[in-house]
Amino acid sequence: MEVVSLFKVISDGGVTSPKGFQAGGLHCGLKKTSRNDLGAIVCEVPAVAAAVYTTSVFQAAPLKVTRESIAAGERRLRAIVVNSGNANACTGQQGEADAYEMRASAAAALGLAETEVAVASTGVIGELLPMDRVSSGIAALPSSLSGDNEGSEQFCQAILTTDLVKKEVVVSLEVDGREVRIAGAAKGSGMIHPNMATMLAFVTTDAVIEPQSLQGLLGATTDLTFNMITVDGDTSTNDMLLTMASGLAGNTELSQSHPDWDAFAAAFQYVCQTLAKAIARDGEGASRLVEVTVEGAVTDESARAIAKTIVGSSLVKTAVFGADANWGRIIAAVGRAGEPVNPDTVDIKLGDIIVLTGSRPIPFDEEEALVYLKGDTIAIKVDLHNGPGHATAWGCDLTYDYVRINAAYRT
Amino acid sequence: MEVVSLFKVISDGGVTSPKGFQAGGLHCGLKKTSRNDLGAIVCEVPAVAAAVYTTSVFQAAPLKVTRESIAAGERRLRAIVVNSGNANACTGQQGEADAYEMRASAAAALGLAETEVAVASTGVIGELLPMDRVSSGIAALPSSLSGDNEGSEQFCQAILTTDLVKKEVVVSLEVDGREVRIAGAAKGSGMIHPNMATMLAFVTTDAVIEPQSLQGLLGATTDLTFNMITVDGDTSTNDMLLTMASGLAGNTELSQSHPDWDAFAAAFQYVCQTLAKAIARDGEGASRLVEVTVEGAVTDESARAIAKTIVGSSLVKTAVFGADANWGRIIAAVGRAGEPVNPDTVDIKLGDIIVLTGSRPIPFDEEEALVYLKGDTIAIKVDLHNGPGHATAWGCDLTYDYVRINAAYRT
Repeated sequence: MEVVSLFKVISDGGVTSPKGFQAGGLHCGLKKTSRNDLGAIVCEVPAVAAAVYTTSVFQAAPLKVTRESIAAGERRLRAIVVNSGNANACTGQQGEADAYEMRASAAAALGLAETEVAVASTGVIGELLPMDRVSSGIAALPSSLSGDNEGSEQFCQAILTTDLVKKEVVVSLEVDGREVRIAGAAKGSGMIHPNMATMLAFVTTDAVIEPQSLQGLLGATTDLTFNMITVDGDTSTNDMLLTMASGLAGNTELSQSHPDWDAFAAAFQYVCQTLAKAIARDGEGASRLVEVTVEGAVTDESARAIAKTIVGSSLVKTAVFGADANWGRIIAAVGRAGEPVNPDTVDIKLGDIIVLTGSRPIPFDEEEALVYLKGDTIAIKVDLHNGPGHATAWGCDLTYDYVRINAAYRT
Repeated sequence: MEVVSLFKVISDGGVTSPKGFQAGGLHCGLKKTSRNDLGAIVCEVPAVAAAVYTTSVFQAAPLKVTRESIAAGERRLRAIVVNSGNANACTGQQGEADAYEMRASAAAALGLAETEVAVASTGVIGELLPMDRVSSGIAALPSSLSGDNEGSEQFCQAILTTDLVKKEVVVSLEVDGREVRIAGAAKGSGMIHPNMATMLAFVTTDAVIEPQSLQGLLGATTDLTFNMITVDGDTSTNDMLLTMASGLAGNTELSQSHPDWDAFAAAFQYVCQTLAKAIARDGEGASRLVEVTVEGAVTDESARAIAKTIVGSSLVKTAVFGADANWGRIIAAVGRAGEPVNPDTVDIKLGDIIVLTGSRPIPFDEEEALVYLKGDTIAIKVDLHNGPGHATAWGCDLTYDYVRINAAYRT
């Protein structure tokens, strides 16, 4: 809670709120509906860039191209171009050629070097991109760009697939007495699981920051935020989290030795955590956000494994959907997580309702529990009393709509 | 296939088919319906016994009691008493006392020593057994016992929870020219996942078999059968697989050096595999059995991990429910399994329909695929071309009914 005072949340803004960024989006024909399916974020100066990628052994073609751009430009980028509706994954050499062509077209349209451009794709796996539509769309992208909220909005819409709502957040803090902003946009919403997901997330900031410090911060923050959410246990081939720092705030360069580093890191984590929670809340078919807190594990890593096991359990997820205070499924998940647990010292609370103490059921008011479990955010709190480790994970319930959406996604 | 010729399947029989066994079941009031909820298998002589248990750190009270019985009797048992409707898990010292009392009551009713009796429970976690009903039921159990098919039938019914169908199998083979029978009964059907499940399975045989050999065979077979099924990724607190060998077939004692060992082991594996597949097919809400075969992994263990990841993927499961040939989700599961995979050499078939070769999509007849995927058993065949390892895993689709059943199980 104390962390919040280090920065403030700006309710009206988007990825263009930090200085130096424009964004835009349009419909080029990759989605069957008329929703946006192509977007870009462009920085007016070379921005310090950092990225993390899916751990899947099958990495989609755009990830390779983006990795090359960041390496070639010594961690600098001017633009990221994203399409939804087609993941350009498992598309072989043609898919790679298409990702390079997508980058080249964007560089030409924006007047940039190719290696100043990153690309990302999300959508169906195994189908070739219709490059005629992509190229026409990219040619029209520059005219869709703007530095105001409309640009952020169009970009946010362009990256969505089965998401129901756009996901964005902006914070502001002071570094050296100057205002620094950090903003993010993301998309979910199936194939979401620890170790990155069908997830694209983009974080912009105008901070001046040392490149290795930004990469380090991104990795550490990912472990506590995007890697702590799960919708369905599946990790995608396309997950990417990319951040660009324009440096236009004019602060002295941030690194771990900077006196305002902790504040910046906290604000950065808040941005990532807000996007991660938004992805979990908007998980396919989700009706409720589930937040699992584990205390008293032997280590933080152990706590993370247990929290993720609970939040990923289909039986816990269906119980939450049914507003059923079925703590037996929670303790069953704790028991199979493969982590050290004292079987006699586990406490479980649902919100503030104590249901288990010392691994034994405590009588509770079923009516009170039902009212709580019908809320839109369900907190499952587990204390193992077995060490100093703690962690939080986020997910959602498993509903009829999840099955409906995924039984009919491709066809 | 060659294995089948070593034994024959007896279509009309149950756990009482091997010599020396009686079984029975009745309704004592643990289930709200009038279905059986208490059952027993009784052997007329001390049977060689072996068991494997859930890997959960929270092992239900009956497991402790059964373990003690088997240890105390030097791997010999006369009876197993099982209740459904209440798991007697997370029930503390009272739960342990109840499990001991259940054993003592059964021993008294059957005229046996306490340590000749094993107990098992399945159902809701965290509620105390209503011991008055259990005790009355146990007192009536002996009169329900019979050595014919009716006894097997009543027992089979007594161990079910949300299962839709009973699960039993009987095989016959020759050992030393004498007929030996092996029979099994099991229940699922939620919380089913590798490393045992909400699963109770009981295998009877009249073979004469050396106790350590029986335990070794049980463990090895479990890894290839019950540990290769998943319904929802959850492992329960109560899983138990128990086998009893009466020895009344009169063969010379089986152990690995016996010339008919391989035939016996194959028949034993067939019994376990049949029960495991029946559990997967009758997974909560399941409409289809999914059989995933992985070839060409670096090791069998690696193949098993990949097969289980595929069969456990919610996205693969919903695609099967939707009869959608969405191989992208299959390769995504392969990619996140955490096992060595060459990203360029993966072949995938759905039945005999080739959908991916060398990790690249192959055009296939969508109509033909749809017809195949609407069948009642779906074979997903993956060849990694990366080594000699192979494995098979079984699961089921993820349907509206899974959500319906589990959103309303406890309440």
